[in-house]
Amino acid sequence: MSEQDTAPRTATLSRRRAITLAGVGVAGVAGVAAGTAALVRSPDHAAANDTAAGGVPFHGAHQAGIVTPAQDRLHFVAFDVITMDRAKLVALLQEWTAAAARMTAGKDAGVIGAVGGMPEAPPDDTGEALGLPPSQLTLTIGFGPTLFRDAQGRDRFGIADKRPAALADLPHFAGDALRPEISGGDLCVQACANDPQVAVHAIRNLARIGMGVVSVRWSQLGFGRTSSTSRDQATPRNLFGFKDGTANLKAEDAGLLREQLWAQPGDGPDWMTGGSYLVTRKIRMQVETWDRSSLAEQEQIVGRTKGSGAPLGRRDEFDEPDFAAKGDDGQPVIAETSHVRLAHPTLNNGARLLRRGYNFVDGSDGLGRLDAGLFFIAYQRDPRKQFVPIQTQLSRHDAMNEYLRHVSSGIFACPPGVRDAADHWGRALFG
Amino acid sequence: MSEQDTAPRTATLSRRRAITLAGVGVAGVAGVAAGTAALVRSPDHAAANDTAAGGVPFHGAHQAGIVTPAQDRLHFVAFDVITMDRAKLVALLQEWTAAAARMTAGKDAGVIGAVGGMPEAPPDDTGEALGLPPSQLTLTIGFGPTLFRDAQGRDRFGIADKRPAALADLPHFAGDALRPEISGGDLCVQACANDPQVAVHAIRNLARIGMGVVSVRWSQLGFGRTSSTSRDQATPRNLFGFKDGTANLKAEDAGLLREQLWAQPGDGPDWMTGGSYLVTRKIRMQVETWDRSSLAEQEQIVGRTKGSGAPLGRRDEFDEPDFAAKGDDGQPVIAETSHVRLAHPTLNNGARLLRRGYNFVDGSDGLGRLDAGLFFIAYQRDPRKQFVPIQTQLSRHDAMNEYLRHVSSGIFACPPGVRDAADHWGRALFG
Repeated sequence: MSEQDTAPRTATLSRRRAITLAGVGVAGVAGVAAGTAALVRSPDHAAANDTAAGGVPFHGAHQAGIVTPAQDRLHFVAFDVITMDRAKLVALLQEWTAAAARMTAGKDAGVIGAVGGMPEAPPDDTGEALGLPPSQLTLTIGFGPTLFRDAQGRDRFGIADKRPAALADLPHFAGDALRPEISGGDLCVQACANDPQVAVHAIRNLARIGMGVVSVRWSQLGFGRTSSTSRDQATPRNLFGFKDGTANLKAEDAGLLREQLWAQPGDGPDWMTGGSYLVTRKIRMQVETWDRSSLAEQEQIVGRTKGSGAPLGRRDEFDEPDFAAKGDDGQPVIAETSHVRLAHPTLNNGARLLRRGYNFVDGSDGLGRLDAGLFFIAYQRDPRKQFVPIQTQLSRHDAMNEYLRHVSSGIFACPPGVRDAADHWGRALFG
Repeated sequence: MSEQDTAPRTATLSRRRAITLAGVGVAGVAGVAAGTAALVRSPDHAAANDTAAGGVPFHGAHQAGIVTPAQDRLHFVAFDVITMDRAKLVALLQEWTAAAARMTAGKDAGVIGAVGGMPEAPPDDTGEALGLPPSQLTLTIGFGPTLFRDAQGRDRFGIADKRPAALADLPHFAGDALRPEISGGDLCVQACANDPQVAVHAIRNLARIGMGVVSVRWSQLGFGRTSSTSRDQATPRNLFGFKDGTANLKAEDAGLLREQLWAQPGDGPDWMTGGSYLVTRKIRMQVETWDRSSLAEQEQIVGRTKGSGAPLGRRDEFDEPDFAAKGDDGQPVIAETSHVRLAHPTLNNGARLLRRGYNFVDGSDGLGRLDAGLFFIAYQRDPRKQFVPIQTQLSRHDAMNEYLRHVSSGIFACPPGVRDAADHWGRALFG
């Protein structure tokens, strides 16, 4: 607009300086120092620390956001790739990687204020996270089966032969009520942070950068983590009011993580070694019906006490469940159809998952009820040996199913970490 | 269930004790002391303090949640009353008041563990906030026009003659694209807290308590406050990336609050004196389109700089806008169609609002875009003199309208505060 024609035309200009100058340019005020301070998201040296507002290192052998202590908030997005041009897709993955490294360090999404220095250019950061600290933001990418071969059977990007066998389409489970439009996706990004505005900002800017190459297929906000991924974290509660994820895989279990979480050499294609497979399920919970069931029934369904989270018949949350114990009436103390029994490794060939799901409420359902539930997220070494058999058990026998409805499903191959500034998301896959 | 028949039958039992005993009863463990500590939400003496985790007093001359420094998260709900029985409605308002007083103090929703001491009874608190502090939770109730006379013209509860003239149905505004199913409502409750799980827990328990008397009409989560209501708070940013609510009414402006916020004696029916009128608008923001517009254009539309939030041509966020200033080209520095100009009190007969809206992202819209925007919340003394004329101006001339779509609307009369434990929501209205 013509009123802005005194704005700076410097070719390369940091985001925050560009914003301030543009505003001041109108007024013709010479000094800008006073206005800049508020625009710094966080000084670089403060980026990596373990406070709730601090930063999580982006580079490493594994992607952050998997064993990282689960942050409080989630914005998860699945994208469709809308180009057939492999080079464009790879260029986007490079751009995204650079933006992700910046944003997880608490910086804005890009370094250039106005592209080519023209004030007519759109800003390169949307601005709503200016002034906010890194807030432990992690961004974790995954590749869906359709990236390798789409629904029409096309190998759009020449990577069909690189698809890992473990990235198999999930089977239909008993009771599934999946909505295709909020399931699947060619790519996914999981943004976790302790401030939802920071997580939303990150996803929105990735979507903005991806314009013309990707399109948002579905997205989900979560507000309360339902699992701990570190022994330092207290076990949170899901919307049934129960502690969830007590027996979760945790960052400290190095041996188990090798065995159950990270793809190992020889498991499949080399590009996935050090990566992990992600399964997402949006599970609507019929909380109003649940709230009308008795405490005794709720505890029998879960197999744990509501208060302490101890397995029924035991005293402490972290006590091992005693599945052999019988009550005075000769019945198992932990029912055969209880969730804790059916999901337990002893009933599933030792299979375990690293869960880091979130509670959600998406308003109401038009029938007088909250549209609420659990956005389930689980990482694992091979879904064919872990999520699939466990969910097969649960979908057939879990007494909790009466209160659940799976409405969305996704599976993604999450590659290993970005090693350094020369590396980028998808380099080994497309290289 | 039969396994639980050793659970306690004590007639009155505090929530946390009931939960623990029920679990322990199965195992026949005698001591319960070890398990109880984790279930205390917060000791009473810690309930009222001004940390983010602390409590906000529930009783007072005005309802909390209006001038209370805006908390970070929102769960807003509108209910339809589904009974014609006035006594049932009043009894619910009494029950709700007691539960609200408890929950805002960081306690569970009700004092009785198992109603009548039967383990077959549903729990009286849903449990997902066990262990969480008050988190500055406030619960604010409002009465919609349809409570006084419904869509069929019926005076269901004998209060039609008590309807304030200021609680007038909002007119149609230019560009309105309202969805009736997520607009209006007989009753509303605004839950604000610094922990979304605490806000969701509160609304869910009010809905649970109201079963058979009210039904959830619509509900909305918000994750980032977009206004400050106290001079101690920094101005946050909306999803256009701009600071919002700089010129908001604030708790410290005692004279202005009397003049602009609280219903005064003689304004209308006595039962509303000390209350305030609430207007809600769910405003979808076309963020993808916005993100493609230039920084200069964005700033002209808003009338402020994106960086500091200063009015165009001025230096500091809190500088008064200079609407008379012209640029070198002879055009106004702050455009005639800018949001800041059209919403400013000088153009609206001095009218101001106390805003405390929240950003929202409700997933995606199925067209490749985020379903994102602002859930606008404004309190005022008389919407006929405040929101209505301001929104009439904005809806006709605001350059920002190109990026906005109003999809939900509500107006509610929020009575004065609950004075003490003998008082309850709606007492003066129904008394």
